[in-house]
Amino acid sequence: MSPGSVVALAGGVGAARFLDGLTRVLAPERIFIISNTADDAEIHGLHISPDLDTVTYTLSGLADPKRGWGILGDSFRCLEALARLGADTWFQLGDQDLATHLYRTRRLRQGAKLSAITAEITAALGVHSRIVPMSDDRVRTRICTPTGELEFQTYFVKRRARDKVVSVRFEGASEATPAPGVLETIAGAQAIILCPSNPFISIGPILGIRGIRESLRSKRDRVAAISPIVGGRALKGPAADMMKSMRLRPAAIEVARLYADFVGTFVLDQVDQKQAAAVEKLGIRPVVTNTVMRGLRERKSLARVIVRELGIGS
Amino acid sequence: MSPGSVVALAGGVGAARFLDGLTRVLAPERIFIISNTADDAEIHGLHISPDLDTVTYTLSGLADPKRGWGILGDSFRCLEALARLGADTWFQLGDQDLATHLYRTRRLRQGAKLSAITAEITAALGVHSRIVPMSDDRVRTRICTPTGELEFQTYFVKRRARDKVVSVRFEGASEATPAPGVLETIAGAQAIILCPSNPFISIGPILGIRGIRESLRSKRDRVAAISPIVGGRALKGPAADMMKSMRLRPAAIEVARLYADFVGTFVLDQVDQKQAAAVEKLGIRPVVTNTVMRGLRERKSLARVIVRELGIGS
Repeated sequence: MSPGSVVALAGGVGAARFLDGLTRVLAPERIFIISNTADDAEIHGLHISPDLDTVTYTLSGLADPKRGWGILGDSFRCLEALARLGADTWFQLGDQDLATHLYRTRRLRQGAKLSAITAEITAALGVHSRIVPMSDDRVRTRICTPTGELEFQTYFVKRRARDKVVSVRFEGASEATPAPGVLETIAGAQAIILCPSNPFISIGPILGIRGIRESLRSKRDRVAAISPIVGGRALKGPAADMMKSMRLRPAAIEVARLYADFVGTFVLDQVDQKQAAAVEKLGIRPVVTNTVMRGLRERKSLARVIVRELGIGS
Repeated sequence: MSPGSVVALAGGVGAARFLDGLTRVLAPERIFIISNTADDAEIHGLHISPDLDTVTYTLSGLADPKRGWGILGDSFRCLEALARLGADTWFQLGDQDLATHLYRTRRLRQGAKLSAITAEITAALGVHSRIVPMSDDRVRTRICTPTGELEFQTYFVKRRARDKVVSVRFEGASEATPAPGVLETIAGAQAIILCPSNPFISIGPILGIRGIRESLRSKRDRVAAISPIVGGRALKGPAADMMKSMRLRPAAIEVARLYADFVGTFVLDQVDQKQAAAVEKLGIRPVVTNTVMRGLRERKSLARVIVRELGIGS
């Protein structure tokens, strides 16, 4: 039997790092990445898809590995000139990065679907894995804070995630349908991996699209999740703070609990190995390994552990 | 009496050069510039107004004086990245220049008028003269060639003005109304100057907007035009070739003839002084001077001649 597809559910930087390793350990053509698009935004009239782009730039080798977003060595001449015109410039947009947004926005206005446009962009940039938005429909994360609701990028970038998060909702999620190929590929996949991304704002919206959580449930023993919480802290981003303000303990076990209905394997960092027993009590097989990916070596070795544990090597 | 307004009808590079001189010779606040917008275009989904921008960048000191368009020292990182995505990149767009188009396009989509947006941009860039699009309505130059009709920028930039021009039409001109203030300012102006711009594709569209030509006619003795044709050639652009392919002799006198119903003073270059008598026969007062503006000194001295001849000094 030829090796089957491996599906990954992905947010931004944490996912991109793990996928950078995975695509070097498995044939990248086998990997089908479902990207969160609930933190997409309209900035300067352009359609920005931060998570799609972070994964695309990483897998095409264009990413800025230090910064986590954008293109390595990009300049900000356009943004500086926008500031001169009095425009709001709290959302950083590099000059090369802008080309992606211009291309995407124009194609959307021409009536093309986000999934088709993403295929065009990834092909042009030489990405060999499939990267697919969770849905071609508009879904937008709204952050409820004690003083009112915020658009996601306003909460995350403009206000630097400093507001207390009461709850999160995904506008449009209940009417959205999965992008073409998503359910079919999950159904036929050899394995499904939840990247170490924020469970609320990165994985949460994907799970909120009609049919996706159900399709994962029916494949539970092939679904693995990597904890984004290590030693009580998020590897990247506001996940731990969000858990706290939603009265959850910021711990790997709590993430496992959120996924217990559809995840068969849960990967915890070695610093959290005491939580393995609690994971097992949820009926989930724990795998303890190093999950902190400082460099390419760690990215690849985490990928190798997952590949071995799920038995999906070629 | 305080010195009155001076209206200028302007195309692109030739107009910008002359206005650079004029705004240094007269108080820039007196100058009201009506810009051609019939060569506006949608490129990468952005609304580009080449003539508005050329004049704005020149008067704000940002222009690239050699190239004639765009911003001095601008980079082209975004355009290079667009090329990498497979987009058509025959229309050069600098990174700083892009900010203007992004700003304008977003404001238009928000429902703002082009005249209001232009006021915002020119204020932000420190321009002290008023720059106003001829109309807030959409007017588009179409170039009829022996093999079919071309959009203006396709003819001018993509195909480098190499097609024979059978005729020119301005789509939307007959329904377009002048931008706010245009007719009122012409009516009250101390003088109106036609910059040395292409009579067909730069000045022609402005004259085609309802009421403008008539308002100039009623001020004929205060209207002056500077010939864009010197020694049978255009100072810049395809004016001479256009005249030839429309079976007109490329000569200053032929430009004067096109304007005879509303121009009282016609400024010819000294190399064309033999045509002064023919201009006079049209009932137009000829003024012969150097009109070739190689540097700032020539720009200012041409402006001084006009100011003196029209008696509009402060």
